[in-house]
Amino acid sequence: MTNKFIPQGFLLNGISCGIKKENSLDLGMIFSSAPCKYSGVFTNNNLKAPPVKLCKERMDSAIHGLVVNSGNANSFTGEQGYIDALKMAQIAERNLNLAKDSFLSLSTGVIGEYLPMEKIEKGIQEISTKIKSNELDYSNFARSIHTTDTKTKEESIEILIDNKKVRIYGTAKGAGMIFPNMATMLAFIITDANISKSLLDSALKDAVDGSFNSISVDGDQSTNDSVILLANGQAENVEITENNKNYIIFVDALKELSLKLAHSIVRDGEGATKFIEIHVIGAESQNDAWLCANHIANSLLVKTAFFGEDANWGRFVYAIGASGCRVFEDKLDLKLGTIPLIEKGKKAKFTEDQTSDYMKNKDLYLEVNLNLGKFSKSVYTCDLSYDYVKINGDYRT
Amino acid sequence: MTNKFIPQGFLLNGISCGIKKENSLDLGMIFSSAPCKYSGVFTNNNLKAPPVKLCKERMDSAIHGLVVNSGNANSFTGEQGYIDALKMAQIAERNLNLAKDSFLSLSTGVIGEYLPMEKIEKGIQEISTKIKSNELDYSNFARSIHTTDTKTKEESIEILIDNKKVRIYGTAKGAGMIFPNMATMLAFIITDANISKSLLDSALKDAVDGSFNSISVDGDQSTNDSVILLANGQAENVEITENNKNYIIFVDALKELSLKLAHSIVRDGEGATKFIEIHVIGAESQNDAWLCANHIANSLLVKTAFFGEDANWGRFVYAIGASGCRVFEDKLDLKLGTIPLIEKGKKAKFTEDQTSDYMKNKDLYLEVNLNLGKFSKSVYTCDLSYDYVKINGDYRT
Repeated sequence: MTNKFIPQGFLLNGISCGIKKENSLDLGMIFSSAPCKYSGVFTNNNLKAPPVKLCKERMDSAIHGLVVNSGNANSFTGEQGYIDALKMAQIAERNLNLAKDSFLSLSTGVIGEYLPMEKIEKGIQEISTKIKSNELDYSNFARSIHTTDTKTKEESIEILIDNKKVRIYGTAKGAGMIFPNMATMLAFIITDANISKSLLDSALKDAVDGSFNSISVDGDQSTNDSVILLANGQAENVEITENNKNYIIFVDALKELSLKLAHSIVRDGEGATKFIEIHVIGAESQNDAWLCANHIANSLLVKTAFFGEDANWGRFVYAIGASGCRVFEDKLDLKLGTIPLIEKGKKAKFTEDQTSDYMKNKDLYLEVNLNLGKFSKSVYTCDLSYDYVKINGDYRT
Repeated sequence: MTNKFIPQGFLLNGISCGIKKENSLDLGMIFSSAPCKYSGVFTNNNLKAPPVKLCKERMDSAIHGLVVNSGNANSFTGEQGYIDALKMAQIAERNLNLAKDSFLSLSTGVIGEYLPMEKIEKGIQEISTKIKSNELDYSNFARSIHTTDTKTKEESIEILIDNKKVRIYGTAKGAGMIFPNMATMLAFIITDANISKSLLDSALKDAVDGSFNSISVDGDQSTNDSVILLANGQAENVEITENNKNYIIFVDALKELSLKLAHSIVRDGEGATKFIEIHVIGAESQNDAWLCANHIANSLLVKTAFFGEDANWGRFVYAIGASGCRVFEDKLDLKLGTIPLIEKGKKAKFTEDQTSDYMKNKDLYLEVNLNLGKFSKSVYTCDLSYDYVKINGDYRT
């Protein structure tokens, strides 16, 4: 990203503190001297990691930033894990001369190991020094949160609110274990917008539903997934306090940015060779639309068929039926790109050449029309390749 | 199998009728001159294939047998598909001089193509001739139902009821798409037991719950899955009409046979290199035990870890948390074989050498104790290998 639109008043950086091998970046910090309103959306996993607990506790605090490490998820680490998460935030607060409880800490990586707190303490000291010297490096921050990611995921956007320039920047890490409800995914979004806490919350929820909670790499959920949004008000627009035109400008921008980041995560899914949108329309209920899109997106048989560039529509059909959504064979339409595969339950007129040509594309679109109602849902997914198995068979070794 | 225990009065055979390539066996028949009581358990997929509809309609009929083809599932074939399924049964009935509606027809294979009825009609004539000449070949029947199976799956058992020898024989096909609720799986069980229809139904339901509905290869469900049980009474035991000692002998034998067949399906899962039992104990409810065992068994991250022989217990933990079952970190015990991994939420004393030695075994056992209640559940699964992706990326080509 050519970091065009940098929200005012934020400093970000990333360093290596020795958690990961070969001096890979593994510690990042976001700092705002002005206090931020803060909103977050977190994993539904019933075994939430200690840093997630910490971040949830601080949802109503004025926050000055966060520290995040990769390489170790500080998950399933019990009381010690919570003490360590707290300590990470405290070390940062102390080094940056901040009030108590004004920082967040997050972690991603291997589950079940205690954080190497000595390395982390030294690292936080080092990165705090950079921050205090106004050393800003967005790209280093973005890379410091990677685990099996192969690409940096950054997006930024500028909007006008009351003739003030308002900027939003976001970066995310994902790769594997991505599932609706944000598995092993961290996303950090910062903005200089001036907006009330309650509208910040609803804007984030809205944006996450259609983006980070609508993607799937392998249908799994982690213990650490978090989307964090910090707003420091430095754009000096009149505070957005109601659901008016200004709010809509803001939430639309946030949605656009979140969707782009979410797509980048899928495109960088472990071993992914294809990006696929599953678009279900005509569902009798929102839940049916979700069930159907989601089941197709997570079906191994569908994902391997996409990897094999095989327009095996029988698998799409079985997945629709297996999803539990209400469906009638004689009402079902199915389209691959613009090629009709099925019309009202009958095989449409298409040739194998047409579909196999289409399947060679990197970006694919599958549309299911249940023709039963007005509800729709898109889920974004990737194929399942040899490399997914390789990456995950060898992760720790 | 050395076909030791063949139920009296049944004839089985299998031939090639040209649906599959290279003269592979693709048409099978089971016949009993004495009418059978018949019970069946079928897929939950909302788009049931026409032969499944036919089999469900005949649940209360006296049945003389069935005809089954592989290579084409006659699924998502609408009215024509139902006409073809009906016709398959009718051709067999005519060739064997049987009453109307006394035969079943089943299909497995590719979804969305009409059956090649000319080939099938000729095939049924040919196999009926064999059956009328008392040509019996269990192994040919067992092979005629294969799709991507690499091994024949047969089991038989003999029990004594009222001093009469009662025999049960079963064969199944599976390989991929195996999931609780029987995805792309066919199982045929025949017995000469004399038993009432209602007890036959409850025995089958009981046996299927703990076997075919407790296995998972890739978490998918097909449109065709069926377990068919035929009982012709030729053992001449006094009819089992109540839940007494004789019923228990029968149902226990049926359970044992079903479990063995179900295990064979998992062992022959597409690309499988490991057989894994996930045993959840101490759950607060039966549903929690099922959720937990099932989520672990279907997690791609767990399955790839088993393939990589990596005792990555962090993944077991995340999967337990993601399953939605009630769980508390500080109560959780985890065992791999007899090696304790976690005791009351803390990493137990074990070495990586111990676990990596254990992971080299072909048969693996993972025990989760939630320590919250008295409910338990075992689910049987396999690992996810390169070959799974290969088999399913190339299935139609």
